[in-house]
Amino acid sequence: MIRVILSGATGRVGALLTPAIEADPELTLVARAAPSLELSLERALADEGADVVVDFTVPEAAESACRTCVAAGVPLVLGTSGLSPDAQAGVDAAARTAGVPVLFAPNFAVGAVLMMRFAEEALKYMPDCEIIELHADTKRDAPSGTALETARRLGGEVPIHSVRLPGLIAHQTVIFGGAGQTLTIRHDTTARDAFVPGVLLAVKAVGKLPPGLAVGLEAVM
Amino acid sequence: MIRVILSGATGRVGALLTPAIEADPELTLVARAAPSLELSLERALADEGADVVVDFTVPEAAESACRTCVAAGVPLVLGTSGLSPDAQAGVDAAARTAGVPVLFAPNFAVGAVLMMRFAEEALKYMPDCEIIELHADTKRDAPSGTALETARRLGGEVPIHSVRLPGLIAHQTVIFGGAGQTLTIRHDTTARDAFVPGVLLAVKAVGKLPPGLAVGLEAVM
Amino acid sequence: MIRVILSGATGRVGALLTPAIEADPELTLVARAAPSLELSLERALADEGADVVVDFTVPEAAESACRTCVAAGVPLVLGTSGLSPDAQAGVDAAARTAGVPVLFAPNFAVGAVLMMRFAEEALKYMPDCEIIELHADTKRDAPSGTALETARRLGGEVPIHSVRLPGLIAHQTVIFGGAGQTLTIRHDTTARDAFVPGVLLAVKAVGKLPPGLAVGLEAVM
Amino acid sequence: MIRVILSGATGRVGALLTPAIEADPELTLVARAAPSLELSLERALADEGADVVVDFTVPEAAESACRTCVAAGVPLVLGTSGLSPDAQAGVDAAARTAGVPVLFAPNFAVGAVLMMRFAEEALKYMPDCEIIELHADTKRDAPSGTALETARRLGGEVPIHSVRLPGLIAHQTVIFGGAGQTLTIRHDTTARDAFVPGVLLAVKAVGKLPPGLAVGLEAVM
Repeated sequence: MIRVILSGATGRVGALLTPAIEADPELTLVARAAPSLELSLERALADEGADVVVDFTVPEAAESACRTCVAAGVPLVLGTSGLSPDAQAGVDAAARTAGVPVLFAPNFAVGAVLMMRFAEEALKYMPDCEIIELHADTKRDAPSGTALETARRLGGEVPIHSVRLPGLIAHQTVIFGGAGQTLTIRHDTTARDAFVPGVLLAVKAVGKLPPGLAVGLEAVM
Repeated sequence: MIRVILSGATGRVGALLTPAIEADPELTLVARAAPSLELSLERALADEGADVVVDFTVPEAAESACRTCVAAGVPLVLGTSGLSPDAQAGVDAAARTAGVPVLFAPNFAVGAVLMMRFAEEALKYMPDCEIIELHADTKRDAPSGTALETARRLGGEVPIHSVRLPGLIAHQTVIFGGAGQTLTIRHDTTARDAFVPGVLLAVKAVGKLPPGLAVGLEAVM
Repeated sequence: MIRVILSGATGRVGALLTPAIEADPELTLVARAAPSLELSLERALADEGADVVVDFTVPEAAESACRTCVAAGVPLVLGTSGLSPDAQAGVDAAARTAGVPVLFAPNFAVGAVLMMRFAEEALKYMPDCEIIELHADTKRDAPSGTALETARRLGGEVPIHSVRLPGLIAHQTVIFGGAGQTLTIRHDTTARDAFVPGVLLAVKAVGKLPPGLAVGLEAVM
Repeated sequence: MIRVILSGATGRVGALLTPAIEADPELTLVARAAPSLELSLERALADEGADVVVDFTVPEAAESACRTCVAAGVPLVLGTSGLSPDAQAGVDAAARTAGVPVLFAPNFAVGAVLMMRFAEEALKYMPDCEIIELHADTKRDAPSGTALETARRLGGEVPIHSVRLPGLIAHQTVIFGGAGQTLTIRHDTTARDAFVPGVLLAVKAVGKLPPGLAVGLEAVM
């Protein structure tokens, strides 16, 4: 059994992770840290210890969570964005020295990570491609971050089409065209708990990563 | 049995229409007119007569075909583009006077016509929509004519996304979004004979249209 | 302004309809009836009167809601299933006599209703079609009710493919195939409020229907 | 430059491969063998020699082509089906002894091979999936060979839905579902030349394979 402390347990993500960790037969949730629960991550670690910490809090707290876990020698799965490149380098150095693996991922949706990996692979054999990303009309930015990241990995010259309509959630299609055929890879996010399986996967695998900072769920896939 | 003269019988379209008309139990192909067959439409009409003429020739010949059929009192299905607005008005007036129906359609793909009709209907209930059209990378223009025509019918402010990739043929998707749902209408052209059923439909129905010029396959649908 | 009484106001549907009716500039929500609010539909009608009643309660209450509204002379939008064919005939007769329109719809998702309408229309020109319906793996029955209803309207001999997977919500595709082309009509339900626009449409239109029982949102589309 | 002999040069496949090989800057087509050209593979090899042989002929000739190429010490790309398991074992042994690589692939569509590879990879993280394959109604068998092969690779318990309609060509979708998300991989064959890039890829890579019989285009991807 892997003993887990969940930091940010009362947030939007933490509220969905709590029952998922509790329901997983390989995991034990030993503490839920959050200001509203009057339990800090430091205190939870001191009181209970843990095999892995999961942190989904606020950007300002990301670096502190890293320091705390590295100091305690406990592997960390970090879903909180907010680490600057300098801060990432600092976390990496400290984690290597301390022999602690830290995994930060901007996107824990397993299907989205697979989509990007498959797209990179497909590009080797079918070099012509375009991206269509579709999101709810409440989304302000276009293209989406996932589309930009996909295009960056594919070399950057990939046309991106952004559809914004009510009724959509979050969807992306990458279409590859070649002689007499097309190959389409599509990821649809249909509910807010799409990140849960990716976090559970990371919790189970982070301990086997080499010391230092790994970026992206791909590190454990 | 409807007796049909096919003008432009040796062209790309005519070559596909010939066996289709011959195979249709309601139609009889009484003559195939084409310069390479040394048979003009006028001569074919004089020699054989017909219940309907189908003309898929060259733009310069469109107006002449109309005049010939109107003069002969034979309903015409015209797939040849090239009638200016002035020429259309002239054909309409002459056809009305002579009591002859003439049907011109820029697109005989029944599915594409249905897509546009359904899109217009959907717009009444789901006013937010976008168009994605996908064509082979050999297609020079973007957006496609069908996408522009669809957008025009939908009021014009519809975003159009144009995908150009090898391996694609000719495809269009219209997506409507509303609270908690989307409705998608998609037409895929997969072979060059997509226009055949629409032409057969027009041949069987043109005789029942009122005299004058009708534009669009919708007139018989 | 149309004055509306919402019966079943605290149910799953009622909870989503309440803010939607309140936000609609053409509607006024004059009373919310529900056992937990200690306000019956009869009482609400007696106290406040209304131009339209909307009822989303329990199957056992459907017939009673009809009787109450017919007796009060108030048009009813009924989303509660449970009327047997005999009960429907009784409601229709009473409503005709009383000069009151009653609209019952099993499905208020505008997009789903359009999908079925378009499918019926497409069938006239492209007689070959198949249905693919995709739902969450928690859905026990297959095919879905919407797929069966679609097939029934299309003549019944339509193959239905039922996909059941986690991550899906409720989706249906009807594919029509013809020479060189396919036409695809797809409806995706992506959130629980997909029925809201259809109910609002019905509330605004039910008063203009002829007296008696109308079945299906199509009656006002 | 890789010197290529094309056997079966006048067949359906060979007719499409001829211009593709001639147009490829890395390849030289040194001979086209076919009964109708009165040039056998043996003779072409004896007269011209080659770096690679490509064989798309008839099932009865598959084993003979293998023997000829192995005897001549020339790597072979074999698209001709018809090798029994016993024959495959014999070819493999002889090719190993002779130090000659032979690549047989039942499907040279790069996109289809990628679809199957990606599906296998996705299954590790999203174990629930279904297959929808769509083909023209002239296709007699169902499920398609590609769908059966995909299901076999995925463990065999995968539901397969077979759609048969006019206007379709050859399409397959594999849908994976997980918490709050779906991942869809789709391959569309849109023209008869879909196999060309895969054959060219194989011709360029077969020489680097280890001696013996390799099965599947994956061997060079």
